[in-house]
Amino acid sequence: MQAKHPQESRTTLTDLVLPSETNPLNNLFGGELLARMDRAASIAARRHSRRIVVTASVNHVAFNKAVPLGSVVTVEAAVSRAFKSSMEIFIDVWVEDRESGNRTKANEAIYTFVAVDETGTPVSVPPLEPETELEKQRYDAALRRKQLSLVLAGKMKPQDATELKALFEDKI
Amino acid sequence: MQAKHPQESRTTLTDLVLPSETNPLNNLFGGELLARMDRAASIAARRHSRRIVVTASVNHVAFNKAVPLGSVVTVEAAVSRAFKSSMEIFIDVWVEDRESGNRTKANEAIYTFVAVDETGTPVSVPPLEPETELEKQRYDAALRRKQLSLVLAGKMKPQDATELKALFEDKI
Amino acid sequence: MQAKHPQESRTTLTDLVLPSETNPLNNLFGGELLARMDRAASIAARRHSRRIVVTASVNHVAFNKAVPLGSVVTVEAAVSRAFKSSMEIFIDVWVEDRESGNRTKANEAIYTFVAVDETGTPVSVPPLEPETELEKQRYDAALRRKQLSLVLAGKMKPQDATELKALFEDKI
Amino acid sequence: MQAKHPQESRTTLTDLVLPSETNPLNNLFGGELLARMDRAASIAARRHSRRIVVTASVNHVAFNKAVPLGSVVTVEAAVSRAFKSSMEIFIDVWVEDRESGNRTKANEAIYTFVAVDETGTPVSVPPLEPETELEKQRYDAALRRKQLSLVLAGKMKPQDATELKALFEDKI
Amino acid sequence: MQAKHPQESRTTLTDLVLPSETNPLNNLFGGELLARMDRAASIAARRHSRRIVVTASVNHVAFNKAVPLGSVVTVEAAVSRAFKSSMEIFIDVWVEDRESGNRTKANEAIYTFVAVDETGTPVSVPPLEPETELEKQRYDAALRRKQLSLVLAGKMKPQDATELKALFEDKI
Amino acid sequence: MQAKHPQESRTTLTDLVLPSETNPLNNLFGGELLARMDRAASIAARRHSRRIVVTASVNHVAFNKAVPLGSVVTVEAAVSRAFKSSMEIFIDVWVEDRESGNRTKANEAIYTFVAVDETGTPVSVPPLEPETELEKQRYDAALRRKQLSLVLAGKMKPQDATELKALFEDKI
Repeated sequence: MQAKHPQESRTTLTDLVLPSETNPLNNLFGGELLARMDRAASIAARRHSRRIVVTASVNHVAFNKAVPLGSVVTVEAAVSRAFKSSMEIFIDVWVEDRESGNRTKANEAIYTFVAVDETGTPVSVPPLEPETELEKQRYDAALRRKQLSLVLAGKMKPQDATELKALFEDKI
Repeated sequence: MQAKHPQESRTTLTDLVLPSETNPLNNLFGGELLARMDRAASIAARRHSRRIVVTASVNHVAFNKAVPLGSVVTVEAAVSRAFKSSMEIFIDVWVEDRESGNRTKANEAIYTFVAVDETGTPVSVPPLEPETELEKQRYDAALRRKQLSLVLAGKMKPQDATELKALFEDKI
Repeated sequence: MQAKHPQESRTTLTDLVLPSETNPLNNLFGGELLARMDRAASIAARRHSRRIVVTASVNHVAFNKAVPLGSVVTVEAAVSRAFKSSMEIFIDVWVEDRESGNRTKANEAIYTFVAVDETGTPVSVPPLEPETELEKQRYDAALRRKQLSLVLAGKMKPQDATELKALFEDKI
Repeated sequence: MQAKHPQESRTTLTDLVLPSETNPLNNLFGGELLARMDRAASIAARRHSRRIVVTASVNHVAFNKAVPLGSVVTVEAAVSRAFKSSMEIFIDVWVEDRESGNRTKANEAIYTFVAVDETGTPVSVPPLEPETELEKQRYDAALRRKQLSLVLAGKMKPQDATELKALFEDKI
Repeated sequence: MQAKHPQESRTTLTDLVLPSETNPLNNLFGGELLARMDRAASIAARRHSRRIVVTASVNHVAFNKAVPLGSVVTVEAAVSRAFKSSMEIFIDVWVEDRESGNRTKANEAIYTFVAVDETGTPVSVPPLEPETELEKQRYDAALRRKQLSLVLAGKMKPQDATELKALFEDKI
Repeated sequence: MQAKHPQESRTTLTDLVLPSETNPLNNLFGGELLARMDRAASIAARRHSRRIVVTASVNHVAFNKAVPLGSVVTVEAAVSRAFKSSMEIFIDVWVEDRESGNRTKANEAIYTFVAVDETGTPVSVPPLEPETELEKQRYDAALRRKQLSLVLAGKMKPQDATELKALFEDKI
């Protein structure tokens, strides 16, 4: 299969924070943002693979910044690395100030999707070829994250996770 | 503050998978399950702290098992470790077969919440005292997970993460 | 069919009161609570019968206590008596105070469900065998309620409703 | 206060059965219909009293007829009797066949609402003066229902419920 | 096919403005009102045609009056003219003041629906015969609106739109 | 105020068609698309004006192409002309085929928003300066549409609508 660029799967979901999505502090519920990111990421995975896709996992997501009621929130998702039938999706979340128009980063998240056929069986996806500097960094880090998730799931021995192990050695 | 047991924050949210929550394969959307787990976990965090709580982060979540339309899904959340103002919540998700009545594990997830006052400033929470064997295992692992998230966020040097580092050494 | 105990169908649905579910006094809408109780009760009926179940009727429900926005509400449902293909479900609703952690009873309700096959035809369900004192009281009262609903529907003559009639005689 | 007629509070809510409101047999969930009836009944109570109104209780509701996905459902609510600060609302539910245009009765329900001020304190409502034969029947039956609910709540002795007691005597 | 009167398709949808449907000024979102009008109009089109109906277009809709949270809103829709397989639906929206009970006109809108069979192919609908003065005015204006929409879509030359052209000539 | 370009308000809302948003033919409800376009358009108006904005009117919208369940729908909105306190927003709707990746135009719509302060009083907005050929065409057409809506609302005499009148003269 022909490799694709992150640009081809980039997905933008700009929408308001509605009153039904807020917690007692009048900020967007963490759970609602997780659901919104899942929808944007699934579209990116689908654009890369042109197959039915299902959520396989969600990586560490940090909620650094509260998102108040009435905000404009932009969720941007793009495939950051493709494996055999799975794809890592990197998601950036931006919040926009109405008066100044400034956009600030509110969140980053990484989801993994698997491409499947109508029976739910995994199918191959095209490789990803990063272009920009940021896309390359995210592409490289994706391998470490995959090793980490295999180690945490007990499917890879820590000492075989060469990329990851380097992180915990002195030179790094 | 008086220590509390995981049992005191345990929260059970049993509900149906409704048609509006399913993907094209007629299974529960990953994003919807993330939102439901966030609500149950926030109640557990609130029961432990008796304060307003907000989602701080979501750890690695794996979706191992599809959850079909019409299923009965049970989300069980309890505090697994308390730090200064943050609490790690361990979540187990079970799906029930209607005909046999069998319950199978569909998912595990770990969320972190922070207790705050009305202005959003973090406040202290009671320590957690695990009782059962499983609660003790989860309590111990919580420290490694906290170190891992500090390392990944660049807020702790890998070689200082003693608990975590041990994972990548030969004896383990 | 083997008798079952109320414990086997007991269903707990603990969830938050969200902003989209409140009336102008900022309390949970009666209609939303009715819908939430219906979902919990349908799961209890399904756990008892292991069949598809549909709501047959709702008994007198009193809303004694307002449930404010942001409350944690626990709906507990269990089968209180099984007839040929119908099941009476007794539902208790509790509201939790965030600061004290106290749980107070907010509501009681009784729903009746019928077990059906894929074509919607009623099918038999196992008998119920109450265990605790409270379960026995509810089991006995269920027969009076059934007679009352038959009388009100014009399907039983008042003087044949022996259990019910006793209520209106002098000794009681 | 000037008496009002049922016609002045009559409320019609005609709407579709949407896919998100259906059970596994593709019929409207009982809980959804309960919520829709609550909204229509609250508008009728508000039209009669011109005050804020809250659901006080729901009488016995029987679901006699399944309402399939895509149906047009008409909920008609009107005040059937006014007491000091409470109002009984009688609700008729009709389902319409798309091809023949025939309307069939699907349900009947009775809700009670209380009029309150901004602090939630009950306030007086105008009396109701029934006009048609059906309105008069419902008006008379409302008193028996009120006695029944007081008896069931243990707030009236059965032998004092004169209207109700007559039901169980031989002449009737 | 036998002609029908507007009265036969008249549809009333009275409902509350719920908190999840409001904008930052606490008024009903324009988009929510558009969706509610679409549901009422589709029922009117279905009552006239007794077929599956799909939205074909929405005419100019002006939002003249804000509709605050907690309002009672009545959407009244009826077929105003029938063409071969399409129907123009005229919609009036009323808002009710709780304290005075006064109803004021909040909106007017015109939607067009097409009747289709199960494959989505357009099918014929009965002609409409207006009865009241207002129904006759709306019936006549519907032809001008149809010409206008054909002209704007480039499907009719402006000079052939005789009804419409008259509007822009000196006598009018 | 400094003029702005359409590019500065361009808003992209890419999202899935969920099961709860479909009609009996399994296509997106017209009313749901109207609501989604309203949200995207309100963000564009807000980005141009940096004020609270409310929907003032919706122009003729044609639904030319059914949008099936599970589709990826992209709503693109940008300000097409600014008047004193109102802004015309032009909206393009695209549907994407999963297998081929082809994007086809499904819809076009024009909404008008007004910028207001916290009390709901209209406030001035910056002028718009179109850049591309398409932006210039839409900018010019916006004046004709404004005249048309004034004429239809009876606020401008047809013979004073010079831009519009030209449409119905022989040369055009």
